[in-house]
Amino acid sequence: METAGKVIKCKAAIAWEPVKPLSIEEVEVAPPQAHEVRIKMAATGVCHTDLYVLNDVKNEKGFPVILGHEGAGVVESVGEGVTKFKPGDKVIPLIISQCGECEGCRSPKTNLCDKNWYNLSHDMMLERSRITCKGKQILHFTGTSTFCEYTVVNDISLSKIDDSAPLDKVCLLACGISTGYGAALNTAKVEPGSSCAVFGLGAVGLATVMGCNAAGASRIIAVDINPAKFEKAKEFGATECLNPQDHSKPVQEVLVEMTGRGVDYSFECVGNVEVMRAALEACRQGWGTSVIVGWTEREEVSVSPVQLIGGRTWKGTCFGGWKSVESVPKLVNDYMAKKMKLDEFITHTLPLDRVNEAFDLMTSGKSIRTVLVF
Amino acid sequence: METAGKVIKCKAAIAWEPVKPLSIEEVEVAPPQAHEVRIKMAATGVCHTDLYVLNDVKNEKGFPVILGHEGAGVVESVGEGVTKFKPGDKVIPLIISQCGECEGCRSPKTNLCDKNWYNLSHDMMLERSRITCKGKQILHFTGTSTFCEYTVVNDISLSKIDDSAPLDKVCLLACGISTGYGAALNTAKVEPGSSCAVFGLGAVGLATVMGCNAAGASRIIAVDINPAKFEKAKEFGATECLNPQDHSKPVQEVLVEMTGRGVDYSFECVGNVEVMRAALEACRQGWGTSVIVGWTEREEVSVSPVQLIGGRTWKGTCFGGWKSVESVPKLVNDYMAKKMKLDEFITHTLPLDRVNEAFDLMTSGKSIRTVLVF
Repeated sequence: METAGKVIKCKAAIAWEPVKPLSIEEVEVAPPQAHEVRIKMAATGVCHTDLYVLNDVKNEKGFPVILGHEGAGVVESVGEGVTKFKPGDKVIPLIISQCGECEGCRSPKTNLCDKNWYNLSHDMMLERSRITCKGKQILHFTGTSTFCEYTVVNDISLSKIDDSAPLDKVCLLACGISTGYGAALNTAKVEPGSSCAVFGLGAVGLATVMGCNAAGASRIIAVDINPAKFEKAKEFGATECLNPQDHSKPVQEVLVEMTGRGVDYSFECVGNVEVMRAALEACRQGWGTSVIVGWTEREEVSVSPVQLIGGRTWKGTCFGGWKSVESVPKLVNDYMAKKMKLDEFITHTLPLDRVNEAFDLMTSGKSIRTVLVF
Repeated sequence: METAGKVIKCKAAIAWEPVKPLSIEEVEVAPPQAHEVRIKMAATGVCHTDLYVLNDVKNEKGFPVILGHEGAGVVESVGEGVTKFKPGDKVIPLIISQCGECEGCRSPKTNLCDKNWYNLSHDMMLERSRITCKGKQILHFTGTSTFCEYTVVNDISLSKIDDSAPLDKVCLLACGISTGYGAALNTAKVEPGSSCAVFGLGAVGLATVMGCNAAGASRIIAVDINPAKFEKAKEFGATECLNPQDHSKPVQEVLVEMTGRGVDYSFECVGNVEVMRAALEACRQGWGTSVIVGWTEREEVSVSPVQLIGGRTWKGTCFGGWKSVESVPKLVNDYMAKKMKLDEFITHTLPLDRVNEAFDLMTSGKSIRTVLVF
């Protein structure tokens, strides 16, 4: 393309400091360096993690930053040594790399690549950002920074997808939907005929319900304090819905009573340590497995060791256990073959400059997913 | 035997109240009722759990009780409906039942039988105790109560073992040794060539080391604050020993440095929540599995959810995952075929009336296991 090798001036939503609304600014995006790819973004989902990071008042070193990590776009140009991508390819930038060579990539047990952005030092992240605004270096976010018309990513953190894929839909496979869906299929490995409880019915929770359903679970109990989510949960496969506020007992006790001895699998899709504890305690003695899908690093989770000694297993999932580069194109194909839902997660579509409105919709529980289009 | 159907008067070590030394008393042991077996005890190990319960000042309802749960003996008489045992059989009373019929027994995923003593109410336990002292009902402990010359147990909590088995050795298979050995083999399923860390080198920890070794682990790092345990640990298969007090960094950081990125498997064999946390954090990101083998119900364990989201798995084990009735005879055979060690755990042998001395030896770290002989 004619922009190749040149700095591109374009629009981005900048987070200058914690808590404050994002600001739409003109930025300068440098050409990709060796093993990097510059992408013209087409669409990006808005995820709770974006807001979580924006609201992290203790993270002084993390600003100014371009948030956003559920994006899809088209390759504009590639840096030296990039062999797997060419201008015009439809791509999804990934929050988890897959170099294919490290101990993690070579193991079938994990999807965590040793070369991931979070294994690198803060300086390395800084070095790899190719975006400036008003002469100021802007930080990269999760190696993706999709709230920008153009972004530059490592070629080990990028999936080439089908040419006919609708980018304003499949962008959601870059994070939340894949995470929840994979939590059930890859991390918990839900067995046919089993009972499941899913705590929290945002996009990640609904995708977890969808995963439990795809795995053939016979009971899928969807748990949320917002009953407005229940209809959608049933659309994704929930067999029952439970509002903890309808009961005087703790929700874990209600679930144990509903199932006789507890559920075979439970999933925490909120990022709240009290819910994580409840999810573990709702599991059946002997073999119940609870998976932490939500994210928090601000608090610790506590539990009696007897819960684990009694035969429960506690796990967590990062991007649903999917080996990123190779799996996302397959998930795109599954969506296009109607084997999994995506459209049903999207409640709002807005232009990039209304990103703060997308955050408001999320906070108020009015949206499942808002997709920003460029 | 001539005592069948009659009350037997014999000696027992009674715990009248928390913390106080056990008292050797004459007790009356009633004949076994339906599906119960009365056993003439030959030997019993003394386990940390006995002392743990004795020192539980909050457990007012749990006294007076006859402790002891690592026993072996010979069947004296059987109650109505008992078909699998006859007088003269060598047997090991079990802390975990195996009825063979419940959901737990029918599942390959757990060794926890639904008819276990701890699933029954306190009244049921009381009803099932067949021992009185000075006219007072004595409580049963873990369904076994082996600190007594005769005890009565349920026939679903008893293994018949080889006629030639030495009871003063194989009694240890009733708890600690099987627990540690099975934690490595059944619960963690340690893979050949993997790295392991075992925290706490009492009998359970040493048995865990033995299990890791049997599974073919290539690195087994034995961790204890008492370096006097290290020689023994190497005898059981430890490749390295680590005293956390030799380092200024937390032990989990030392282990991560020693192994590059953390161990594949870790085992907490102490019953201390801080050690449980360290054991989890010593595991490798992506696939590290930590198993809680020690027991505490007094405190809660805390950890950052990020530890689990980063791909670690947290489990616990109860009796090492062995299906009790069917597995203990096999373990006895393995010992007799010299496939596993038992003699090496026994540092002291004492008569029943010196049981308090056995507790002192344990508290001071001078013994691995004391066996009381009758």
